[in-house]
Amino acid sequence: MLATSGVCGLAILILLSFSGNGFVTASVNLPFKYEIKDFQVPLDHFSFLKNASFNIRYLYNDSFADKGNKRSPIFFYTGNEGDIEWFAQNTGFLWELAEKQGAVVVFAEHRYYGKSLPFGSNTFNKTMPENLAYFTVEQTLEDFALLITYLKNGADLPVVAFGGSYGGMLAAWFRMKYPHIVVGSLAASAPILQFPGITPCDIFNKITTSVFHTAYNGNCTVNIGKSWKAIENLASTDAGKKQISDAFHLCNPLKGPDDLTNLLDYLELVYGNLAMANYPYNNSFLAPLPAYPVRQMCFYLKELHKTDADLLQAMANALAVYTNYTGTVKCLDISSNSNADDSGWNIQSCNQMVMPFCSNSSDTMYRTSTWDLKQVSEKCIRDYHLTPKPNDIILRYGGRDLSSVSNIIFSNGLLDPWSGGGVLQAPNDQVHVIIIPEGAHHLDLRKSEPADPPSVKDARKKEENIIISWIEQFYIWSNK
Amino acid sequence: MLATSGVCGLAILILLSFSGNGFVTASVNLPFKYEIKDFQVPLDHFSFLKNASFNIRYLYNDSFADKGNKRSPIFFYTGNEGDIEWFAQNTGFLWELAEKQGAVVVFAEHRYYGKSLPFGSNTFNKTMPENLAYFTVEQTLEDFALLITYLKNGADLPVVAFGGSYGGMLAAWFRMKYPHIVVGSLAASAPILQFPGITPCDIFNKITTSVFHTAYNGNCTVNIGKSWKAIENLASTDAGKKQISDAFHLCNPLKGPDDLTNLLDYLELVYGNLAMANYPYNNSFLAPLPAYPVRQMCFYLKELHKTDADLLQAMANALAVYTNYTGTVKCLDISSNSNADDSGWNIQSCNQMVMPFCSNSSDTMYRTSTWDLKQVSEKCIRDYHLTPKPNDIILRYGGRDLSSVSNIIFSNGLLDPWSGGGVLQAPNDQVHVIIIPEGAHHLDLRKSEPADPPSVKDARKKEENIIISWIEQFYIWSNK
Repeated sequence: MLATSGVCGLAILILLSFSGNGFVTASVNLPFKYEIKDFQVPLDHFSFLKNASFNIRYLYNDSFADKGNKRSPIFFYTGNEGDIEWFAQNTGFLWELAEKQGAVVVFAEHRYYGKSLPFGSNTFNKTMPENLAYFTVEQTLEDFALLITYLKNGADLPVVAFGGSYGGMLAAWFRMKYPHIVVGSLAASAPILQFPGITPCDIFNKITTSVFHTAYNGNCTVNIGKSWKAIENLASTDAGKKQISDAFHLCNPLKGPDDLTNLLDYLELVYGNLAMANYPYNNSFLAPLPAYPVRQMCFYLKELHKTDADLLQAMANALAVYTNYTGTVKCLDISSNSNADDSGWNIQSCNQMVMPFCSNSSDTMYRTSTWDLKQVSEKCIRDYHLTPKPNDIILRYGGRDLSSVSNIIFSNGLLDPWSGGGVLQAPNDQVHVIIIPEGAHHLDLRKSEPADPPSVKDARKKEENIIISWIEQFYIWSNK
Repeated sequence: MLATSGVCGLAILILLSFSGNGFVTASVNLPFKYEIKDFQVPLDHFSFLKNASFNIRYLYNDSFADKGNKRSPIFFYTGNEGDIEWFAQNTGFLWELAEKQGAVVVFAEHRYYGKSLPFGSNTFNKTMPENLAYFTVEQTLEDFALLITYLKNGADLPVVAFGGSYGGMLAAWFRMKYPHIVVGSLAASAPILQFPGITPCDIFNKITTSVFHTAYNGNCTVNIGKSWKAIENLASTDAGKKQISDAFHLCNPLKGPDDLTNLLDYLELVYGNLAMANYPYNNSFLAPLPAYPVRQMCFYLKELHKTDADLLQAMANALAVYTNYTGTVKCLDISSNSNADDSGWNIQSCNQMVMPFCSNSSDTMYRTSTWDLKQVSEKCIRDYHLTPKPNDIILRYGGRDLSSVSNIIFSNGLLDPWSGGGVLQAPNDQVHVIIIPEGAHHLDLRKSEPADPPSVKDARKKEENIIISWIEQFYIWSNK
């Protein structure tokens, strides 16, 4: 999930589409197998206006289930913002646990992503903004509720929801609203509190700063903090612009002031992405990256520099950890965002996913920026004819009042900037909070790796035990 | 709420509109006072298609609240199928408890009823069936959620939902889906289980039969059971038709077969209404009625009769208990249903409120009738262009799986035919089931009367204690 900055405009880096360009296949060699199926859902679950429908995709694997046991559990991933195959390949924990528990594996694609497009190629057609009307959390949860009901086929069997990031938010909300359909949910790195008025807007950037500050040495954040002004200084002359363009190997050299803004916004988002993907082993989750990439990047920023030009060169070297770890990238294209499937998330941040982000240069490595709903709304109306509803999510899902919630695991890694909007205190003894000090963004959902730190191994063990207890409790109750 | 018969067509008797014709003023002299206010709500809470809005009405009285205490509780009635003023005047328990507890009283009108019409006079325009699209439970619950949030005005205060019949279903569902907004709900005579596949369709008519059977003596149900055929026999000749028309004082004498069907359907619904309104004192809830009207009616049916003509005359005398208790009705108009506001409920029974009803002549006093979704659907499409969604309610609210529900009181009177679809067993210790052996349809919600039986006094006391405990618990938690 992306931190969309409010004022500075959007620059989406996250790689959401599972395209054939090798960034997933290179690292994991597609270990998980499934059938790809379609399921018909109503376009609008909540009105009786018309009976239109379309198909969402889901991935299905029942090879672990005991075919003689008609009550095998279902492990159901509540798909989030991207092609569902990408999530399936990056959620190894679900597969490993399904194998142990004899569960059927289902990954359901979120409407408006991947191939689950309600209006086909016209889904995002700018001349048809009305096509975006049904792109909401509630419609998506209903899709999942119908799909699970269909898959259960009348049998009384336990279903566990899994999700990471926005998918974790969906898993949590699904359990809140449909507790009769899922026995519980694992909501990994799910910032359900990252909404207006209930979490400070600077928390994301503060955590990112802290992660960078402690990654190698304190000079890392000092350098990044100085870099904004240094780059601006250099960019004030044509020679300086060329110097910047050369240092970063920009495919399109800097020209006007917009180019500079785009570069700075790009850098800002890279830091957030690096913190999210700060895993203890090489991975290609957001981009091909080394183990602990923040430490790698900060290694290049360990010295203080006397001139803007020296700092620029250090920054360029550091950035290559993110942009060219493979060493095969010819030039840096900050405008195309190559593999990004950003169209969906930008829209959701303009209807319900109204998450404020801001920062203060005095206590972070970022530029000072504010969040202003009015400006966000104007941009959303301009871009999509959508007026954001900043209170929708809190109204429906309770904000910080989770006292009546049960059977949800909220796991958060302290290296993850999204943990600032996560549930870090259990509201009651039926909600489980698991903190992973050495964890980045939903590290616990990934498959086991030799380099996993003890804290994530512990977290997965706890999660496994809680999930098993839900399933056992279900069988006890339903056999009464 | 009405039992709409599936096969026999609809004949709606319940008096849902608080019209100025005196049926309410005559009995209770409008004891409860309030301001009438408007609140703007989105037409469609769940899509971003358009920004249309309209006003719902609500009744407001803060005279009991301690004005110095900004955290006075709110007692919020979740309005059901009718003019909200009618419910306010027939829900005295809420007022009495509000006075004791210093609570603000709010009665919110359900969209599409009373004066809360989304499209004004065109709301039910047959040429604009699209206007019915937003007439759903979920839209209504969102109206209430927004209204409560507005009324709280940012304060952290406890809100308790109250409702009877369909209003009780709404109160229960509201707590299930918005537990962060209400600390608990009193769902009186709320048949949330009266849906396809989870409750036998003949339960309503079986209970009604049982109530009639035990009201005076067993001949009551024998006579009613024989009356269907007796009236049909008589109606087979013109002389017989005249005899029937004269006996019942029909405004429009019987002519064709449809007239006979309408008369028999009318009788069937009268019996259900009488059981619902079988209160221990004179009342005008559904019609001006004596105390324990079923007993009164059955008094006229205590003898067995040898001829159809004798039975007819006894039936006519018995029916007058319901149709002419005041003695002022000149003739019986079975087609106009005078004060009924049946347009709304008929529509809801064609979208989500798909409640099956049937009966078997071998074990009830009714004719045998079946329930057939296909026939219901055909009629709904014909009448309103609506295709019923019989699974919507169970999918969203869990059917009989209420294991994760908390802080709801389900009260049911055993004299109430709707109790068959009510929650009679608590799924856990946070849900309270209160059975009122001597209670008809949500008797406990009505104001205290000298003739109240001990069981309803006990029920109200229990309800009061539970509600107070929710409020106290809220203050303890929120002051932490």
